[in-house]
Amino acid sequence: MSDLLWQKPGVAVDAGIQAFLAGDDVLLDREFFLHDIKASAAHAEGLQRIGILTPEELGGLKRELANLADDFRSGVFVLDERFEDGHSAIEARLTERLGDAGRKIHTGRSRNDQVLVATRLWLKEKLARVAQLSRDIAKVALDRAEAEKELPIPGYTHIQRAVVSSAGMWWAGWAEAFIDDAVRAADTLALVDCNPLGTAAGYGVNLRLDREHTTRALGFARMQVSPIYAQLSRGKFELAALEALGGATLDLRRIAWDLSLFTSAEFGFIALPAQYTTGSSIMPNKRNPDVIELMRATHASVAAARTEIEQLLSLPSGYHRDLQSSKGAIFHGFGRGLAALELLPALLANLDWREDRLRAAIDSGMYATDVAVEAAIAGVPFREAYKAAAASSETAGQGRTPEGSLAARTSPGAAADLRLDALRARWEAS
Amino acid sequence: MSDLLWQKPGVAVDAGIQAFLAGDDVLLDREFFLHDIKASAAHAEGLQRIGILTPEELGGLKRELANLADDFRSGVFVLDERFEDGHSAIEARLTERLGDAGRKIHTGRSRNDQVLVATRLWLKEKLARVAQLSRDIAKVALDRAEAEKELPIPGYTHIQRAVVSSAGMWWAGWAEAFIDDAVRAADTLALVDCNPLGTAAGYGVNLRLDREHTTRALGFARMQVSPIYAQLSRGKFELAALEALGGATLDLRRIAWDLSLFTSAEFGFIALPAQYTTGSSIMPNKRNPDVIELMRATHASVAAARTEIEQLLSLPSGYHRDLQSSKGAIFHGFGRGLAALELLPALLANLDWREDRLRAAIDSGMYATDVAVEAAIAGVPFREAYKAAAASSETAGQGRTPEGSLAARTSPGAAADLRLDALRARWEAS
Amino acid sequence: MSDLLWQKPGVAVDAGIQAFLAGDDVLLDREFFLHDIKASAAHAEGLQRIGILTPEELGGLKRELANLADDFRSGVFVLDERFEDGHSAIEARLTERLGDAGRKIHTGRSRNDQVLVATRLWLKEKLARVAQLSRDIAKVALDRAEAEKELPIPGYTHIQRAVVSSAGMWWAGWAEAFIDDAVRAADTLALVDCNPLGTAAGYGVNLRLDREHTTRALGFARMQVSPIYAQLSRGKFELAALEALGGATLDLRRIAWDLSLFTSAEFGFIALPAQYTTGSSIMPNKRNPDVIELMRATHASVAAARTEIEQLLSLPSGYHRDLQSSKGAIFHGFGRGLAALELLPALLANLDWREDRLRAAIDSGMYATDVAVEAAIAGVPFREAYKAAAASSETAGQGRTPEGSLAARTSPGAAADLRLDALRARWEAS
Amino acid sequence: MSDLLWQKPGVAVDAGIQAFLAGDDVLLDREFFLHDIKASAAHAEGLQRIGILTPEELGGLKRELANLADDFRSGVFVLDERFEDGHSAIEARLTERLGDAGRKIHTGRSRNDQVLVATRLWLKEKLARVAQLSRDIAKVALDRAEAEKELPIPGYTHIQRAVVSSAGMWWAGWAEAFIDDAVRAADTLALVDCNPLGTAAGYGVNLRLDREHTTRALGFARMQVSPIYAQLSRGKFELAALEALGGATLDLRRIAWDLSLFTSAEFGFIALPAQYTTGSSIMPNKRNPDVIELMRATHASVAAARTEIEQLLSLPSGYHRDLQSSKGAIFHGFGRGLAALELLPALLANLDWREDRLRAAIDSGMYATDVAVEAAIAGVPFREAYKAAAASSETAGQGRTPEGSLAARTSPGAAADLRLDALRARWEAS
Repeated sequence: MSDLLWQKPGVAVDAGIQAFLAGDDVLLDREFFLHDIKASAAHAEGLQRIGILTPEELGGLKRELANLADDFRSGVFVLDERFEDGHSAIEARLTERLGDAGRKIHTGRSRNDQVLVATRLWLKEKLARVAQLSRDIAKVALDRAEAEKELPIPGYTHIQRAVVSSAGMWWAGWAEAFIDDAVRAADTLALVDCNPLGTAAGYGVNLRLDREHTTRALGFARMQVSPIYAQLSRGKFELAALEALGGATLDLRRIAWDLSLFTSAEFGFIALPAQYTTGSSIMPNKRNPDVIELMRATHASVAAARTEIEQLLSLPSGYHRDLQSSKGAIFHGFGRGLAALELLPALLANLDWREDRLRAAIDSGMYATDVAVEAAIAGVPFREAYKAAAASSETAGQGRTPEGSLAARTSPGAAADLRLDALRARWEAS
Repeated sequence: MSDLLWQKPGVAVDAGIQAFLAGDDVLLDREFFLHDIKASAAHAEGLQRIGILTPEELGGLKRELANLADDFRSGVFVLDERFEDGHSAIEARLTERLGDAGRKIHTGRSRNDQVLVATRLWLKEKLARVAQLSRDIAKVALDRAEAEKELPIPGYTHIQRAVVSSAGMWWAGWAEAFIDDAVRAADTLALVDCNPLGTAAGYGVNLRLDREHTTRALGFARMQVSPIYAQLSRGKFELAALEALGGATLDLRRIAWDLSLFTSAEFGFIALPAQYTTGSSIMPNKRNPDVIELMRATHASVAAARTEIEQLLSLPSGYHRDLQSSKGAIFHGFGRGLAALELLPALLANLDWREDRLRAAIDSGMYATDVAVEAAIAGVPFREAYKAAAASSETAGQGRTPEGSLAARTSPGAAADLRLDALRARWEAS
Repeated sequence: MSDLLWQKPGVAVDAGIQAFLAGDDVLLDREFFLHDIKASAAHAEGLQRIGILTPEELGGLKRELANLADDFRSGVFVLDERFEDGHSAIEARLTERLGDAGRKIHTGRSRNDQVLVATRLWLKEKLARVAQLSRDIAKVALDRAEAEKELPIPGYTHIQRAVVSSAGMWWAGWAEAFIDDAVRAADTLALVDCNPLGTAAGYGVNLRLDREHTTRALGFARMQVSPIYAQLSRGKFELAALEALGGATLDLRRIAWDLSLFTSAEFGFIALPAQYTTGSSIMPNKRNPDVIELMRATHASVAAARTEIEQLLSLPSGYHRDLQSSKGAIFHGFGRGLAALELLPALLANLDWREDRLRAAIDSGMYATDVAVEAAIAGVPFREAYKAAAASSETAGQGRTPEGSLAARTSPGAAADLRLDALRARWEAS
Repeated sequence: MSDLLWQKPGVAVDAGIQAFLAGDDVLLDREFFLHDIKASAAHAEGLQRIGILTPEELGGLKRELANLADDFRSGVFVLDERFEDGHSAIEARLTERLGDAGRKIHTGRSRNDQVLVATRLWLKEKLARVAQLSRDIAKVALDRAEAEKELPIPGYTHIQRAVVSSAGMWWAGWAEAFIDDAVRAADTLALVDCNPLGTAAGYGVNLRLDREHTTRALGFARMQVSPIYAQLSRGKFELAALEALGGATLDLRRIAWDLSLFTSAEFGFIALPAQYTTGSSIMPNKRNPDVIELMRATHASVAAARTEIEQLLSLPSGYHRDLQSSKGAIFHGFGRGLAALELLPALLANLDWREDRLRAAIDSGMYATDVAVEAAIAGVPFREAYKAAAASSETAGQGRTPEGSLAARTSPGAAADLRLDALRARWEAS
């Protein structure tokens, strides 16, 4: 354990307590380290602009921060338990290399706003990735909806055969779902796109910091004005980000369920390329769709991350050390969530429908709704038409084909009128 | 129990099973009933526009729907266990009063899109209310921030005295928090502002429904295009809405914690009007801040509602009866959440600071950060200035006043430069 | 709104605030009312034993408490918004009927221990019910395991066909699951089986209450000694009880998933009596297994209840009004959970296997593991035997039958050696 | 990446997919590795007893398993990404060292029961630790309750001063709380104390495995009979274990809240040794009780682990890869939970009360309940006595002392009759 920045002479340090305090914080800080370095450079620029640093000191700091980033990326510098955390590591390195300029970098700054700004930049990057992947998934779905709009598949409610559906409808549903997920991720990115740097420990400082400069330099859309709120947003913004991610991973959970059923022997609707499956250690005959199952499991990790943060946030205003756990939580949630979303576009692009099995699963009762609505169009009150169709639902299919059912499905959004152009327009705008 | 719409002759009905299936559904439907009636009228208009209903039939249906709404509001019509659910109740009433026109109302519609559209309208209304209340709360906070910007209060981190703060800073923090909550509620409202009516049971129908008309008539911003997605959004949109509400109730939990501490004898910073407190059944001396505690408890109910829905959503696509539980969940979450938010503006407007206690709690160590930063401005590297100030923190206050500390707190957003205009501008735009 | 017990002269009452404070508390108290009356009688007996009440006063109080219970059960007395809560209602009634004896009943008691003891009695009753229902479910499963031990069914992992299984194995699995659930419910009942009455507001009273008597009279296994802990156990015991219930409802969620798949057209393994299914409002052909789906949904409500309480419990020791929400939560969680478990024994007893479909789903690859293990028995190292069987898994079934596979499955607990006697012995002891 | 045990010739392997499948599984397996080795030895013994292995083969396997355990402990063998998981690593090592004996070890075993048994042994160890630490904490509390039973402290409800309390009462409350936590951990240990080894992939095998032997050899109390249930208990037992841990960490959250308030300047009731506090990076005056705050935060991690597993368990029976995530979850939950509980006994043993501050916080209104009860003893109906005391609560303290109030608090469990012997008896039995 390194020297502690804030340590006072004469206070004994207990190793067990120090280990508990540190947790795996410094290892997690690897994830945020480059953002911390970037924000430190912007902070130094701001200090120079108000006369706390000389241009030479600023030059040195920026050079050494760039070197540290290079050394970190290349593995020459390893952020590990020698340091209390990533923040101290930066200050220690700058002081070692530059002396007093290093000792000045923390002027007007607290670790509180330092961790806030690094996390904020990280969250923005991750939310942008959620938006992009959601768009990528929607794109595959839109393209396949167009290409397969005439392929009949059985439509289910309650996992019971309901009416004839089409691959086009199925894909269009997922396209609209993931477009919404992209929109939500973008909205959330806009919500958190504000600069907390310069709020210090939550009460500002007696220094006219150039927060406009750091806001611009770091690419934030606006300043997070209130230092009190900067602290209140710790955890709150992490939660909002995880909830936006959760929108996508919940949709992932549901599409994975479809795929899990569709790849069973009993449904048999879909064939997956072999690389998406694994074998068993004891059963020689197995090919298991593990990728799909791990995708389905992903949302649980996002939900766990949210639980971990939400339960912390029963606190008065101001910083509390409880919030340290939020770091591991977002790392876990976004780590798992993005890993799964990354694989989905290719998986969807590569799955094959088994048309024979799809057609075989369309039974004659699935035309009964068509029969009832046709009678209603002909003037029979629907409730009577329904009862008549129910009484004869076994013969409903006589003379009917899946193609005929789909061609007549003309309500907007349904098989004969998918409205993919409307979806494409929202996709473009998302 | 009423006749069941879908019942087939010869199937025995088990009372215990029917009670389990019904749950408290029909009672919950009271909450959504007027929205269901409104959407039924729009659906009927759409049917008339495509020739399924005559103008006379439409006229009759609209009149009887309006009568039903009046009877429901006045208590003449009671929605209770005589009906399977609110949806069946509407159809039964229309059929009783109008005969065949009533039997036609369900043409091209399923209870699936019927419950979706009623819930959607309800969610929009509730999200608008979250946004409005968040703005109301922010308004009180902005006004008091302006009025009390010079009142010193102690600033805490870790519930330990940290630096001098101001009532202005405290209020400004909550203002920015609730402005964000209003923005998020509005974003979420925009996300769910799409019309599911006309998607039937999730696969559309063989009828050219006029969904553009119903979208317009019901005031939706756009059509929810895909019938598959309409079903996938069941629960998903409820979750997004609860998460937006949760943003506000989490902030409420934290401000309630501040108030709970500040009204304790030990802090004693705040006096609450007596109507916000209650007594004890055994201890004659007690006045307890129960309103604040129930506000603090509110988020737990919102979180519970979210849990209830999220855990349901591990399902393949298509409708499943599991989703029935989502109705009670949003009713519970929004019921509790809005009830608490409703009371907050007046509570905040009416609380009084106890200035003597605030000043008494500002001790001399709370100037040490000022001392260190002043030295840094004078050229001492901050880390050295920090160490010097730490060594003499007990004497840091000599010759210093809370007013002096606040007047020098010039970093943007801090006491001497609150930037309320920037917050007001976002408030106006929210 | 009734007079408030603790109200002081001159404090204005705000109707909106009072409504917020009351919530639906008095309605929920109906659930706990008879337990409250029972505990009030025991408290009165205790007071008489230490001389606070005369034998005549005790006689009057017990008579009026019994009358109140009768009036409540018969509907003559309705607990509603006229009362602040159930506790006040009891005291008001006793005072109205008995004068000073009524005014004495609250001696040495607080609403805090009053609600604790009523809730405790309620929880014990509900946990006993969870244990009993779990045993009932296990009994059906044990009986059917015995009866159907030779019926082959396909065994799955990853929802992919794996090896031949048997109905006997399937039932035995659920039997052991619900035996454990019964054990856990009983353990939890023992944990909470302690008397909080006599701890007042969490600090005891200056009165030598006869807590041994009330402990005995109310049938508790022991006294909850510490008044501080009595308060700390509010919510904690509710959580433990919900978690025990959750053990059973999680198993219910998984068996409901099996049944949901097995009743699909694609699997088609199970036929359900018609009363367990419902129809569709638009699709005349549908029979949906709604009962199974609502059973699957049940755990979400239990989890929601747990969330609601757990999130409250971030508080210092002592009573806080936040805990009021725990009442609605246990009512919701146990209400839903027990309603679903009540129906399960009959459902399981009445479902029919479709043997033709089960046999048709056993394909030849499902014997490959048998082949590999047989080779291992014959001396081929298992990993080589596995590879050989994998290479020829399509021909693995030649000359093999489901019956043969099951007869050879001799590992303890497997089809040929189910060890139902061991399960029955634990069932007897549970 | 190593060869995959189950890999078939000709199937391309995609690195991205393999990385997703692997996750951090092999690193987590380090935690369970020694248990896996131990269970492998027991399995080998069982195989020898039924003639699958020769005594020589068994000798070799046991020797190499012991060597592997030694190499792992000493760091000579590192379990890392070269292996698919810990299970494959063991088989690979045995095969490398022993040839065919290694290829035989997996006879009659699947990775499914292999991971179950290793996890089960791990859970038993952790639950025993929870029980032990809960007892240790209770012991400190019992000892201090005895020693400090006459020290008056203010008693609170609603964080408002209520009545005089004592350090003895406070400690006794926590003692009883953690005794219950120890009991619950022991009950849960007994619930999960059953041997899943020998259930293979969930359907048993065509081999008369000696499960009685492995049950005995691994120290299990009983066999987990049903192979189907062995799979169903994956996740279920992890949840039960986390819930038992959660009982203790919830109590920890509440005692940490007390300590957090009591160490604030405003309460000032407790002094903590300096090693439990940390400083600030910007504020030279701060000593923050970070250890207490991280203890308070701990339950959030336990709750997150539970969420992660619970959300997975919406699945049919049989193994599914979704369950892989449960491994990381228990590691996280128990890792954090036990780390915090480990530090608590010493922290409690070392904290000092500040008697002057405690006495100063006892104000005269806190005797009003004593006054009312005394009047009730003298024959005034309590409700009238209450009103009289309320009217004069400001003068209630005249002539009264904290010591007098405590001496009169004679209800069982209260300050004058703590009943520590009853608590000690349960502690001994726990």
